[in-house]
Formats: sequence, C-alpha cells, structure tokens
Amino acid sequence: MSLPAETAQRLRAVLGPRLSETAADRDHHAQSEAFHRSPPPDAVAWPETAEEVSRILGICNEAGVPVIAWGTGTSLEGHALPLSGGLSLDLLRMDRVVEVRAEDMQASVQPGVTREALNTELRATGLFFPVDPGANASLGGMAATRASGTTAVRYGTMRENVIALQVVLADGRIIRTGTRAAKSSAGYDLTGLFVGSEGTLGVITELTLRLQGQPEEVAAAVCAFDSLDHAVECVSATIQSGIPMARIEFVDAASARAFNLHSGSSLPEKPHLMIEFHGSPAAVREDAARFGEIAAEFGAEGFDWATTAEDRARLWRMRHGAYHACLALRPGASGLITDVCVPMSHLPAAVHAAAEDIAAEGLIGPILGHVGDGNFHSLLLVDPANPDEVGAAKRIATRMAERALAVGGTISGEHGIGTGKRGLMGAQHGEGWALMGQIKAALDPRNILNPGKLVPDRN
Amino acid sequence: MSLPAETAQRLRAVLGPRLSETAADRDHHAQSEAFHRSPPPDAVAWPETAEEVSRILGICNEAGVPVIAWGTGTSLEGHALPLSGGLSLDLLRMDRVVEVRAEDMQASVQPGVTREALNTELRATGLFFPVDPGANASLGGMAATRASGTTAVRYGTMRENVIALQVVLADGRIIRTGTRAAKSSAGYDLTGLFVGSEGTLGVITELTLRLQGQPEEVAAAVCAFDSLDHAVECVSATIQSGIPMARIEFVDAASARAFNLHSGSSLPEKPHLMIEFHGSPAAVREDAARFGEIAAEFGAEGFDWATTAEDRARLWRMRHGAYHACLALRPGASGLITDVCVPMSHLPAAVHAAAEDIAAEGLIGPILGHVGDGNFHSLLLVDPANPDEVGAAKRIATRMAERALAVGGTISGEHGIGTGKRGLMGAQHGEGWALMGQIKAALDPRNILNPGKLVPDRN
Ligand SMILES: Cc1cc2nc3c(=O)[nH]c(=O)nc-3n(C[C@H](O)[C@H](O)[C@H](O)COP(=O)(O)OP(=O)(O)OC[C@H]3O[C@@H](n4cnc5c(N)ncnc54)[C@H](O)[C@@H]3O)c2cc1C
Ligand SMILES: Cc1cc2nc3c(=O)[nH]c(=O)nc-3n(C[C@H](O)[C@H](O)[C@H](O)COP(=O)(O)OP(=O)(O)OC[C@H]3O[C@@H](n4cnc5c(N)ncnc54)[C@H](O)[C@@H]3O)c2cc1C
Repeated sequence: MSLPAETAQRLRAVLGPRLSETAADRDHHAQSEAFHRSPPPDAVAWPETAEEVSRILGICNEAGVPVIAWGTGTSLEGHALPLSGGLSLDLLRMDRVVEVRAEDMQASVQPGVTREALNTELRATGLFFPVDPGANASLGGMAATRASGTTAVRYGTMRENVIALQVVLADGRIIRTGTRAAKSSAGYDLTGLFVGSEGTLGVITELTLRLQGQPEEVAAAVCAFDSLDHAVECVSATIQSGIPMARIEFVDAASARAFNLHSGSSLPEKPHLMIEFHGSPAAVREDAARFGEIAAEFGAEGFDWATTAEDRARLWRMRHGAYHACLALRPGASGLITDVCVPMSHLPAAVHAAAEDIAAEGLIGPILGHVGDGNFHSLLLVDPANPDEVGAAKRIATRMAERALAVGGTISGEHGIGTGKRGLMGAQHGEGWALMGQIKAALDPRNILNPGKLVPDRN
Repeated sequence: MSLPAETAQRLRAVLGPRLSETAADRDHHAQSEAFHRSPPPDAVAWPETAEEVSRILGICNEAGVPVIAWGTGTSLEGHALPLSGGLSLDLLRMDRVVEVRAEDMQASVQPGVTREALNTELRATGLFFPVDPGANASLGGMAATRASGTTAVRYGTMRENVIALQVVLADGRIIRTGTRAAKSSAGYDLTGLFVGSEGTLGVITELTLRLQGQPEEVAAAVCAFDSLDHAVECVSATIQSGIPMARIEFVDAASARAFNLHSGSSLPEKPHLMIEFHGSPAAVREDAARFGEIAAEFGAEGFDWATTAEDRARLWRMRHGAYHACLALRPGASGLITDVCVPMSHLPAAVHAAAEDIAAEGLIGPILGHVGDGNFHSLLLVDPANPDEVGAAKRIATRMAERALAVGGTISGEHGIGTGKRGLMGAQHGEGWALMGQIKAALDPRNILNPGKLVPDRN
C-alpha cells in the first residue's frame, strides 16, 4: 500500500527528506520481537518538533490515515506494528534532554531520549532516573507502555515517575498535562490517562520525569536456593516484612544456565534471587542483615556480594541480558513471553503452577521476573514453524493469565497489550474494556492512532 | 423544585423510606464549608448496594435528573452542592469494610467508610491507611477529590493509595477498574481517571486501598523559627536533602496563636514546623539528627519532642484542628481557603509572596500547609456580608494561583475544583480542560453526574 497522493504531498511539504517511502525504512518499522507480524507502513516520518507532529496528525486525521508512534521498537506485544498500514511516526530524532531541574529532582525530555542516554546526561548531577526495562527503550515508548523493570519495587513504574506530558491529539491539538508540583487535585489525571495508552490516544512529544538521588550506599548480591518454591516464598516473606528492597529479582535454574552460557558467569544451575539495597550505610547494613535472616530460613546459600560499582553493573547487565540469553538456549527458536503480575501472597503458587504447566507441555520456558512486585515472565521457546509448539505456548500463556485473573492479578505487569494480549482484555476488564473504547472514540473519532491495538474494535 | 413524579415513584420503588424529600434532609445536603451556596436538592437517597446505585442512576439518566454523590460533605469548594437540583446520593450507609487482606496490605471498603473508622478497624492488624485530610472524610469522597494530608510527603495521596475501584457509570453500568497486583500495564488507567473526578464521571461504590505497616519507631516534634522565610527555607532544604520525612508541616505565627486559643497549647507566637519520622529505631535516630542539623542552620529553637503515642496524637489532633482553630480567630467570619502547590524550589518565594499580599490587603489569613509537598493554604477570614473583604480575599486567592501557575505549580494541591476553583481551570490546563470536557461528555452524555463542576460548560 502507499499513502494517498495528496497526503504524501502534504506530508512532504512538512517533512522534506524526513519522510521516507523506501522499502528498507518501511520494513524496519514492521519488525517486532517475538511472534507478531505485520505488513510494512506506507511511509515513515521523522518529526523533530511537537509542531511538526501536530501538522502531521492534522493531515493524517483529515485523510483518515493511521499514525503509529515508534520509539525504539522494543515492545514485546507488537505494539508499534502498522497493522493496517499508514504512517510510522519515528520519534528518535526528538532526542533532546530539554531541561534538568536538579533542585526539584525533575527533568523534561523529548520522547526519543532513551533511558541510558538520560542517565548518562544526569551523571554529574548526583541524580538518576530509576525505571529500567531490560532494553534501552525510548522514554516516550516507556511512558506509552507504562514500563517498569527491576527497580519498580522501590521507585515505582512509569505511572509514578512521569509527572507531566506534552501530547499531540489525533486532530493535531497540542496539550500539556500535569504540573511540576508534587501533587495536584485540579481535574482529571490526564497524565495518567496517556501513560499506558500505547499510542492510541495521542503522541507524547515531551515528558517531565521525577528523578531520584543517587543512594549514599548500594549493596547487591546474588544467592541460590534449592527449589523454586523456596526462592519465591523467600520473596513473599521479604516483601511482607517491609524491608525496603531496591531490587529483588527471581531467576530459575534454566535462566541461571542461560546466563552461564551467555554472560560467562558460573552460577550453580539453581533458582536464584538477585537483590539490591539503597540507603544510608547504616540502613543498608540493617536491611541486608534482616534479608539474610529471612533468606536463611528458606535455605539460601552461596551469597555473592557485589561490592564494587563494576561488579554491580556486571550483575545487572547479566539480568538485563536475560531475554537474549534465554533465547539463545534454543538457537533458531522464537520466544513467546508471558507477563502476569499477582498479589504478593499468591506469587509462590502462581510461579509454581506456571513451572508445572511448562514442564507438562514439554517446552523450554525459563521463568524469571520482578518478583518484588509479584510480576514474573516465562520466555516460552518454540519453533515458529511448528504449530504444535506454538499452540502449546499459547495455551500455557492463556492459562497463566487466567490463573492470575482468578486471584485478582493482571494479564500484563509491564509489557502492555499491543496486539498480542488484546484477546484477554475482555476477561480482565469486562465492561471496563468497553469504557476504554468509548474514551478512545471520544479522543480519536476517526481511529487513526495505532488502530487495532489495546481497545475493542469499533462497531 | 421537586423530582418529576414518575422518577420519584420509580426511585421510591428501589429505595422505599431511604428516599427523602423532607426539607431537613434536603437542606442538610445543600450545606458546604466556606462561601459556596446552592439551592437544596430535590430529594436525598441513601443507597445500600452498588446494584441500588446502578438502578438509581439508570432511572435518573433516563429522566435527565442530576445525581450528586455525597460522602461526608466536608469538601471545601462546594463540590457536593446540587447547583441545579436533582438527587443527592448520600453514601454513608455504604459503610462496610468489605475485606482486609493483611498479607497483601490491602483493604476493600465501601465508599461511606471514613478514614478514622477504617483505621480503628485496622488497629489489630498492625497496618494503617495513611492518607489523612483534616476532616474525618469518607474514603469515597477522598478518592473523588484526590485528597491528601500531612503524610502525603511519605505515603502519597489518594492517587497512590487507591489501587482498584468499583464504579457505577451514568447509565447504570457497573464496572471494576484496576487489580490487586502491585502494578499493571493492561490498558488505560481507569482507576486514575476516576480518582479526582469529583463525582462527575461515575459513583464509586467500592475501593481497594493500599495499606502501610505501622512503623517500628515513630518520633515527632515541633520547633519554632524566627521568621516565616527561615521556616520555609528549612523545609526546602530538608526535602532536597532526601531525608525521608513522614510529616513536615508548616504553621505561621497566626496559626500558632490560633492553636493556643483553641487547643490550650502554649506555643510561642512564631512560625513552626511540625515533623515526624517513621522507620526502624536506628533510621529514625539518624533522620532526626540530620533534620536537627539542617534546622539549626535556619535557627530552629525550642524543639519539643512528642515521645509518647498520646503526645503525638495530641500534636496531630491540634494540627488537624487547624481549620476550625483559625476560623475561631475571628468569630462570625467565613473562611476562603487557598490550596496552591508549587515545586519545592519555589516554595519559599511562594509563601513569602502570599504573606506579603495578605498583609497588604489587611486581612487576617493564617498560612499553614503540607509543605513537604510544596502545598500550603491560607485561610482568609472575612465578613461574608462585607463585599470589600470578600473581594480582597478573592483577589489574593487569584494572585496566589497565578503565581503558582507561573512556576509550574497547580491551583489545587489537594482540595480539588468543585465550583470554587472552576474559573481557574482554563488558566491551568488550556486546551487540556476542553479535553476533560470531551471525556466527561463521552462518559456522561446527558450530563447528569454533578453538573456544573470541574469541567467546562457543555455547548
Ligand atoms: C530485551 C528486552 C527486555 C525488556 N525488558 C522489559 C522490562 O523489564 N520491563 C518493561 O516494562 N518492558 C521491557 N521490555 C519491553 C520494552 O522495552 C518496553 O515495552 C518499552 O517501554 C518499549 O519502548 P520503545 O521505545 O521500544 O517503544 P516502541 O516499541 O517503539 O513502542 C511501544 C508502544 O508505544 C507507542 N509509542 C512509542 N513512542 C510513543 C510516543 N512518543 N507517544 C505515544 N506513543 C508512543 C507505540 O506506538 C507502541 O504502541 C523489554 C524488551 C526487550 C526487547
Ligand atoms: C477541617 C477540614 C480540614 C480538611 N483538611 C484537608 C486536608 O488536609 N487534605 C485534603 O485533601 N482535604 C482536606 N479537607 C477537605 C475534605 O475533607 C476533602 O476534600 C475530603 O476528601 C472530602 O471528603 P467527603 O467525604 O467529605 O466528600 P464530599 O464533600 O461529600 O464530596 C466531595 C466530592 O466527591 C464526590 N463524591 C463523594 N463521594 C463519592 C463517591 N462515592 N463517588 C463519586 N464521587 C463522590 C462528591 O460528589 C463531591 O464532588 C478538609 C476539610 C475540612 C472541613
């Protein structure tokens, strides 16, 4: 497909050479992790300002041409795929850190800034931005998926760390949501509405983020357990005890094996917890000691403390590399990744049931996750050409979601819905899903923004 | 006015004697703090279940009769006033704590449960619900106004502490929003949309709340400063230093005088800070010592530590009584209360300018607030029959709001908009205010839910 000629011409007048219709550029914006496939977009645009985004949306809205925002394309549920063609709006040229207000612990950034780029820029200030998905994603994409990562247990997700936005609406209007104050009771929480909306309600063109002070002291460690149940029960007990963990990550024996192969580590092939404490020296000592006591009750062994900054960086690089390390366990395989999140008291049973189910279906599916939030993943490794395997993986994923819903959990802790999890939205939200559709219709009456994602089909 | 006869009859079939059209009941639901006045509602309903609320809304939506939810009526901007008649929906009979899940630190409650009732019920569990506005408000009303209080600096506002809702929409549909998991990326944040929507988008019929563990150690104190500037600068410096304050409240000399008259305290008539620390014994000691050093730099004196639980209860009862204590400074006066919130670095200048402005206009207007969030109030005491005084108070309030907006702050940190602050919404949100109107129109097409509040008039 290609853009309507008049639309293409009007867009070219705005963008010049920053509008591309080449096959290479279009194909690049039809790629996605995992299973999801899509035809390429009709064209790709690289805007540089909110005003350009506004003009682009105005033009596409008039013509009814779909617009799909694109950050770094690392989302895992086919979020940024142009399912019905249209324009892929690549925001990576909007990559400026607009302002750092260290005294208020805030930064304003354009959406194409990645989390690593922001943290590099912040280094001299003694501040950092805590949300850290495994990929070096764009902050716009992270806001749009309500991303989180290893530190959410302490610092929250994008929901807690985005305090204001500039957004371009489907019809080209530019709005600002939120304020720079620590709290506000002045009307509907529009910031919260756009965070997690996956490009279906508007295009984020600037974000104001909450920053954190570098902790005075950091201590990290890894320890092993004899069984998956003991490791996960240790997490529940730790969180329930109120110890302020900065990170508490679970990886199963298969993940440990993957790390050893991929990162050159030499972990015993057992379930592990990776933990980190932030605070004053006295507080960190106290927290680590209390955790040690709880872990000992569950038979933790082989505590390996990462005492230097480099050791800690290596530890978390290994954890962030888990997705690719686990994929490499079965060369040529595709991964279907699950993402349920359950209340803490249900975590041990949920992980246990998932492990049994994967074993019963005979798949390789390492389990790991941000268990301090009750969130865990299984990366189900399948031969994409083998329908039996793909079917088994989908059955496992659906049963995990159903078990999570049965205990008040969610089908997605952090990855979002995109196209991959849309079939489960009705089960989670009931009539609330229809309400999301009503909001979408009110804000995007011509359904140009990332159509076919998140909300129900328009009737 | 009275309800259309058929509507009244249909409502009576649902509610029996729990529908009242007596003058006493109607007048009670037309009262409000401060300046705001309204005719009484046509009738008052006391539903007992979500299903009843659903049937009531279905009936009123068909007839186009306004429905105004009513919690305890303590909101300060005329939020719950039936400006154009209709039905006042009093939720105080829905006052059941449905379930306490201590292991997940959550409680599910009906909307008429008050914060004190909940905390009484929680006492045996070692948990508490932290959000504490001065009034003993209903949790439904607190969610609807996105309330906060003295502890928001540590535990957040209703935005952070409501994790799921049951809501009845204008057309009677009952939906559930959110989950019991610690985080979720499954679609639009409907919970966040209803929190702060002031009864204009739906009626909250159940809330799931995040609870906190009783801190192992608590230490509270009050100390005095020689000038307002020094006290407020001490707050900025404390927050910027990252000391985890559980409470840090500012009261000016006039407020101290009011406490002395009203609560029998004997504070020097100077600006004060009231502070509290929560944590392990070692952490509290460390935090208190670090605060003491900062406070000393700003000349703090007369530290009075509340060492017993009763002393602390007395201290915070005094603080929570501030509104009535300050009103009593001028018998017969009405209070117009301001509620701006600014980024921390702008707090000292904002409070200073407010104090100068009040003095220049010659009004009595004690200043106090939850300054750890950058939020402060002035209670401007005026003779409601004196248009000059009322005009002066309104001018002061408007200038405070304009100064807050100029530095990226908000016109309301916690009280909300209701009818009193609606005139400032355009200045704060620009086109975003129109967007709120679009959302309102999509969810409540007949405009029956609390009409005339928060959003722009429908055209
Ligand atoms: C190895 C690996 C590890 C990962 N680990 C984690 C993890 O720990 N936690 C986690 O949460 N996720 C994780 N992810 C998923 C992914 O990194 C996140 O979903 C991330 O937030 C996507 O950001 P992105 O910039 O790549 O967005 P994209 O994939 O480009 O887009 C994602 C969605 O957001 C929309 N969007 C993008 N930019 C904007 C904008 N400016 N305005 C409006 N909408 C926009 C798109 O239309 C799309 O719907 C991981 C992915 C990989 C590959
Ligand atoms: C002395 C005093 C001190 C105060 N201190 C503070 C403070 O420190 N912090 C603070 O934030 N506020 C404070 N307030 C204001 C007030 O207590 C809060 O706004 C409180 O949240 C209102 O709760 P309520 O139950 O009284 O609600 P109401 O006044 O009954 O209603 C408030 C709004 O919420 C709507 N509403 C009520 N229940 C529901 C429901 N179930 N579903 C949908 N909508 C509903 C109403 O329609 C109305 O629009 C104070 C007030 C007083 C009088």
